[in-house]
Amino acid sequence: MASWTLPQPMHRALALAEDAARVGEVPVGAVIVRGGTIVAEAHNAPREQHDPTAHAEIQAIRLAARKLGEERLTDCELWVTLEPCAMCAGAIVHARIGKLYYAASDPKGGAVEHGARVFDQPQCLHKPEIYSGMGEAKAAQILREFFRQRR
Amino acid sequence: MASWTLPQPMHRALALAEDAARVGEVPVGAVIVRGGTIVAEAHNAPREQHDPTAHAEIQAIRLAARKLGEERLTDCELWVTLEPCAMCAGAIVHARIGKLYYAASDPKGGAVEHGARVFDQPQCLHKPEIYSGMGEAKAAQILREFFRQRR
Repeated sequence: MASWTLPQPMHRALALAEDAARVGEVPVGAVIVRGGTIVAEAHNAPREQHDPTAHAEIQAIRLAARKLGEERLTDCELWVTLEPCAMCAGAIVHARIGKLYYAASDPKGGAVEHGARVFDQPQCLHKPEIYSGMGEAKAAQILREFFRQRR
Repeated sequence: MASWTLPQPMHRALALAEDAARVGEVPVGAVIVRGGTIVAEAHNAPREQHDPTAHAEIQAIRLAARKLGEERLTDCELWVTLEPCAMCAGAIVHARIGKLYYAASDPKGGAVEHGARVFDQPQCLHKPEIYSGMGEAKAAQILREFFRQRR
């Protein structure tokens, strides 16, 4: 599938993942959309920022919440290139993100359809609508290329 | 048990939880200790900061990592008044926190001994040493009092 057929937010998230790779960060990108407009975007940056919590999703959520002056992002969508980990899935719960779109699944670190399955816990306070797979080939290729070059 | 018998980091974490309650935040406090010294501390502050990720643990980890200039806090201890949620447990994994001490367990939101059980997943990359229960009566009392007053 050519990338121009992807929805614009995932196209942008993939470009952010490529930006991350260029600066030596594990290539994951995320954007937050509200009413059809991107309100925040980020790429993975724990090394650059000396911050183990600086995953793309966490940063995008923090930026969006600050920008909108709201602790909850109920009417927002999060588009991210990789299945969120437990930390990021938990943040999605706390932010009450309405819809989650992710490209590649992540059997090693993902916590949506793997491992901790955060949204499927009976105690989970909020489960977004979840759509996966759009852009997954490109997202996986960017990650593969990154790790191949560093081997 | 009188609070003076508690180890100093948990004593401080409980005081931070009380600070949180005074400003209308759910009362949870956290401190990070390295070599016997507190290097970062924070209380829960998502409302004040318009940041759904601003749990005590996340903020303390971010502060410690920035202060120490390191993405990983392997030789650090995290002391927190409540069982960490999935987001915070995930952050503890990413930060490679060596030891986790938490006071009260949290059947509703906790993800250490409840729900997502983040550290018990086969895919989990790092599990800290975990000690729970110290200060739990006081931590639970601070939380109960906070929610009672807001009912």
